[in-house]
Amino acid sequence: MTTVTHEDVLKAADRIAGHVLRTPVLEVSPGLLLKLELLQHSGSFKVRGAFNRILSAGELPDSGVIAASGGNHGLAVAFAARALGVRAEIFVPEVTSPVKVAGLESLGAHITQTGAIYAAAAEAAAKRAAETGALSVHAYDQGEVVAGQGTTGLELMEQAGEVDTVLVAVGGGGFAAGITLGTAVGSGTTIGSGAAVGSGTTVGSGTAVGSGAAVGSGAATGSGGPRIVAVEPERIPTLNAALEAGEPVQVQVSGVGADALGASRIGGLAFEILSGPRVESVLVPDEAIVAARRTLWQEHRLAAEHAGAAAYAALLSGAYRPAPGERVAVVVCGSNTDPATLLTT
Amino acid sequence: MTTVTHEDVLKAADRIAGHVLRTPVLEVSPGLLLKLELLQHSGSFKVRGAFNRILSAGELPDSGVIAASGGNHGLAVAFAARALGVRAEIFVPEVTSPVKVAGLESLGAHITQTGAIYAAAAEAAAKRAAETGALSVHAYDQGEVVAGQGTTGLELMEQAGEVDTVLVAVGGGGFAAGITLGTAVGSGTTIGSGAAVGSGTTVGSGTAVGSGAAVGSGAATGSGGPRIVAVEPERIPTLNAALEAGEPVQVQVSGVGADALGASRIGGLAFEILSGPRVESVLVPDEAIVAARRTLWQEHRLAAEHAGAAAYAALLSGAYRPAPGERVAVVVCGSNTDPATLLTT
Repeated sequence: MTTVTHEDVLKAADRIAGHVLRTPVLEVSPGLLLKLELLQHSGSFKVRGAFNRILSAGELPDSGVIAASGGNHGLAVAFAARALGVRAEIFVPEVTSPVKVAGLESLGAHITQTGAIYAAAAEAAAKRAAETGALSVHAYDQGEVVAGQGTTGLELMEQAGEVDTVLVAVGGGGFAAGITLGTAVGSGTTIGSGAAVGSGTTVGSGTAVGSGAAVGSGAATGSGGPRIVAVEPERIPTLNAALEAGEPVQVQVSGVGADALGASRIGGLAFEILSGPRVESVLVPDEAIVAARRTLWQEHRLAAEHAGAAAYAALLSGAYRPAPGERVAVVVCGSNTDPATLLTT
Repeated sequence: MTTVTHEDVLKAADRIAGHVLRTPVLEVSPGLLLKLELLQHSGSFKVRGAFNRILSAGELPDSGVIAASGGNHGLAVAFAARALGVRAEIFVPEVTSPVKVAGLESLGAHITQTGAIYAAAAEAAAKRAAETGALSVHAYDQGEVVAGQGTTGLELMEQAGEVDTVLVAVGGGGFAAGITLGTAVGSGTTIGSGAAVGSGTTVGSGTAVGSGAAVGSGAATGSGGPRIVAVEPERIPTLNAALEAGEPVQVQVSGVGADALGASRIGGLAFEILSGPRVESVLVPDEAIVAARRTLWQEHRLAAEHAGAAAYAALLSGAYRPAPGERVAVVVCGSNTDPATLLTT
């Protein structure tokens, strides 16, 4: 299994520079920062991973790139493909919102809507990729994708200085895993290697750079970067269930976050990284997500989709309670929503 | 007549720090920056001036503060008053959008909706202020208000480094005037004093600090800070008409920007400052404003009201054309809109 490192995130940042936006940080009250990744091209962080995967691949076949997606990843791959002049084929499940399908159409992607949830669309896309030879861009479980998403964390650290805690939503886990890597502090840090030593898995044991240092001073002791609070809807607990089981397991997918956090099993790479000591898993009910999304609009004029508001929901609902003086960053990660629904759902 | 200076903007920044947000800047393409003032408390820049005016006043009467407003200024005064524990009475015209009236109600302000346009509401508010003794917070034509709005320009210069040009919308002109002051470069600069010397008016002649230096090195030669492009809807050309006439004149008020840029005459203070050599007046048709607002949502997920999109409209429509390599900042200044209308109007 490929190990992804902080170094890979640094390389990804160089590779995708100029293709993605450096999204701003807004301090809404003393010590509470929102990373406005919802303002990213294509309306979510997903373009970071998409560009990194495609730009890492070298020459592409005429069939271009292919992806399965609840919507946001597809929009990102379609956006990146258009920017790079590459053909894109996107498979989305029936749960994908009309606003996302319309967005895909406007980006010129070839769309197939099939299957009830993401996993079914992913299966169809894999079959199609085998036929056409197109470059598969996975929604979360590829090293280049995780490293690309991690550039959000790098940026955050540059913009926000020291933060104690980062709250981030988890679907397949690629974003939270990338941010865990991207926010890692210390020379040659290989997140996951500390966990590997502790848990007896093989994460990072082969290619880890400076893993001794990381184990000694960083990941193994729980330091080496801010705490990562990995937030999931109660109705899609891919990471939470995996941590309980000790390995990725299948979960049911439902609720308001399903079209963007709708993976039914945490990614293997993400599980390696997110089972490390810096990471805390937190669940939030759908009502908290709905309330947080409304607050983001009413108080801060940010038009987030439900999944994009999940991390903030953990804070507003008290599912995660910072200590006094704790400096907290919340990643608001997606805005592919019908704005007409901001005040009603 | 009171003269407002760069120094007043610096003092305002100290006074209102902690009460207003430091709104972020988003570079959407190389050299094109959006100052996201639409994410400000109360949904527009207006809280800056409101806090500065109220905090400058010392002890307030029991009747608190009073303001007339197309909506945004009222929301700002109500927000500031609530934050400071002060009673607020707000007069709005009938053109004020329901979303703004609802916002005022939720902030606990005492609301009177009267008159067809802003000027009529302003007259009613002035009469009421004379009865109650409440502190009047003018929407644009008070030194403390202009200086408060100018802190947006100070922030922008700190965040964006050197910019060649700032595009900003004009209604009564307080915001554009404040930004002209706030972005002024050079010690003791008194913007307006250069113009005063050149034009024979008396702006700044009494209280100007360092006006000799400003005239010698700054305002009089057109340098001393970025070019300010003052953007107005064709259907509300308060500044444009005043510049043509050589003095503030009455204009007709109509069109999509009317509820936020609906002053029918440029403020006296604003006219002094905006008739200086750094400022260029530009008009945009309503269709360009509508298109820019849609682009802000579709491309950047920013939910601006029409007036908030006016400055960007000047750029997108070609009403202002930057030179190659010109570094341009556009202030997106208001978001008090029904999000359901983002894609339809």
